[in-house]
Amino acid sequence: MSRIAYVNGRYMPHREAAVHVEDRGYQFSDGVYEVVLIRHGKMVDEAPHLVRLERSLGELQIKTPMSNAALRQVMAEVVRRNRITGNGLIYMQVTRGVAKRDHAFPANPQTSVVMTAKRLPEPSRTGVEDGVKAITIPDIRWERCDIKTVGLLASVLGKQQAREAGAYEALQVDSEGFVTEGTSSNAWIVTADGDLVTRRANNAILNGITRLTVLKLAERAGIRFVERPFTVEEAKGAREAFVTSATSLVKPVTQIDDTVIANGKAGGLSLQLFDAYLDYMTTDEARA
Amino acid sequence: MSRIAYVNGRYMPHREAAVHVEDRGYQFSDGVYEVVLIRHGKMVDEAPHLVRLERSLGELQIKTPMSNAALRQVMAEVVRRNRITGNGLIYMQVTRGVAKRDHAFPANPQTSVVMTAKRLPEPSRTGVEDGVKAITIPDIRWERCDIKTVGLLASVLGKQQAREAGAYEALQVDSEGFVTEGTSSNAWIVTADGDLVTRRANNAILNGITRLTVLKLAERAGIRFVERPFTVEEAKGAREAFVTSATSLVKPVTQIDDTVIANGKAGGLSLQLFDAYLDYMTTDEARA
Repeated sequence: MSRIAYVNGRYMPHREAAVHVEDRGYQFSDGVYEVVLIRHGKMVDEAPHLVRLERSLGELQIKTPMSNAALRQVMAEVVRRNRITGNGLIYMQVTRGVAKRDHAFPANPQTSVVMTAKRLPEPSRTGVEDGVKAITIPDIRWERCDIKTVGLLASVLGKQQAREAGAYEALQVDSEGFVTEGTSSNAWIVTADGDLVTRRANNAILNGITRLTVLKLAERAGIRFVERPFTVEEAKGAREAFVTSATSLVKPVTQIDDTVIANGKAGGLSLQLFDAYLDYMTTDEARA
Repeated sequence: MSRIAYVNGRYMPHREAAVHVEDRGYQFSDGVYEVVLIRHGKMVDEAPHLVRLERSLGELQIKTPMSNAALRQVMAEVVRRNRITGNGLIYMQVTRGVAKRDHAFPANPQTSVVMTAKRLPEPSRTGVEDGVKAITIPDIRWERCDIKTVGLLASVLGKQQAREAGAYEALQVDSEGFVTEGTSSNAWIVTADGDLVTRRANNAILNGITRLTVLKLAERAGIRFVERPFTVEEAKGAREAFVTSATSLVKPVTQIDDTVIANGKAGGLSLQLFDAYLDYMTTDEARA
């Protein structure tokens, strides 16, 4: 089955999907993106992803390429043409378009939209219980991490460091010793008192859609949570730790650097939230 | 005359020059670039540009795409095919190549090389004497500004702010009030004592090739210079100010925010260095 990509109004074989070398996404990282998970052939949290996309575009003053209704139609068509009836994801990139190279905004840019899709294995609780390892690295990113831009080089270098250390993720740490977030995930801990803690969303982190959903699910389950920064030391001494993202879902972290978290197994709250999130993904609410 | 671009081994009409949507330059800003000025049909400071390119690639662990000799051949061919016999520039972008989207480095990436060229008007002293306006903005970039990456979104936003303020450039200011550099240029002042000052090259700024050449020319002319940070206040009270880059050459700055610098005309040292740089560009040394 050949994959199909959407590029500025056309559906085409994935291997032929191309953008001009003067696309500002390529020359200036002047663009944003979203990754939307597909579960049982249906998009998960499509609505909030589109809200965030609109916010990212607004912050960069990139003209919205089309109505949300039209974007939803394209997304559905990409899922259909790629015959994703199980698990998968849509990657959508929106840039300021093609223009003669010049840093400042071009006069009449035509916003560019590219979408690709791929299948993913079924999410499963197997493996989740063992958790993953994370390392800590200095957060060297720019000061607008709240915008989901394609300027991801710092995250690339951080993730590569994690891989080379045999870790799943790198937790980025600000100049005051507080964890900001993973290179492609939000970071959470459960304190000794049983409080769920994740950093408040400001310009230092991306406000993950999975983060927002997990907060909602925690609230519904009556789990006490607080949005505040936590240090690396606090994370290492935590009862539980995990990261969240559209593709990681709720991923327990059982080792940070050389420190094993608690007993080295995924904690109860992490597993509860993993299960709750897995259930959530197929609800009407997630598919709104 | 149609423009010709070079894309991974092929010369093609500029309008057809494209890269795959999974080029990591497009999805992750995982690439670097160089802009080389052409004067009288010859490249200016090609050798140091290639040295810097190699350094940028090394810092990102991107495999060198070809030998410098081969790169030089391609550059010369791009100049030739675009029939640039006067003034112009080459834009060269080198990325980690095309790979299935994943933050960490792909296993066997094929480094991608794209080159475009365009003509530019003759540089001229006219207009230089009036100087340009600059504004000051907070430096919100990442901590590896020494690498010439295509992750330029902060510079895009800064340059746009400058344009909207009717200014030529935005000088970025670090959290301690010191000027780092312009969004696409290095920043210089001449103090009341006649000292030429520009920030030392570390991870906070790009070590401009024009910057290095101007330092060399200043030294040869017996001009006293010091590499140290300077504040916005010091710049506003300076005897002269200017910015340098491959395309700006030596560009006198005669107003910063609402403050007119000295008498509002380009200073003597700025003009001396502009003239020296203009002369330099056609020397054998510049063409080495």
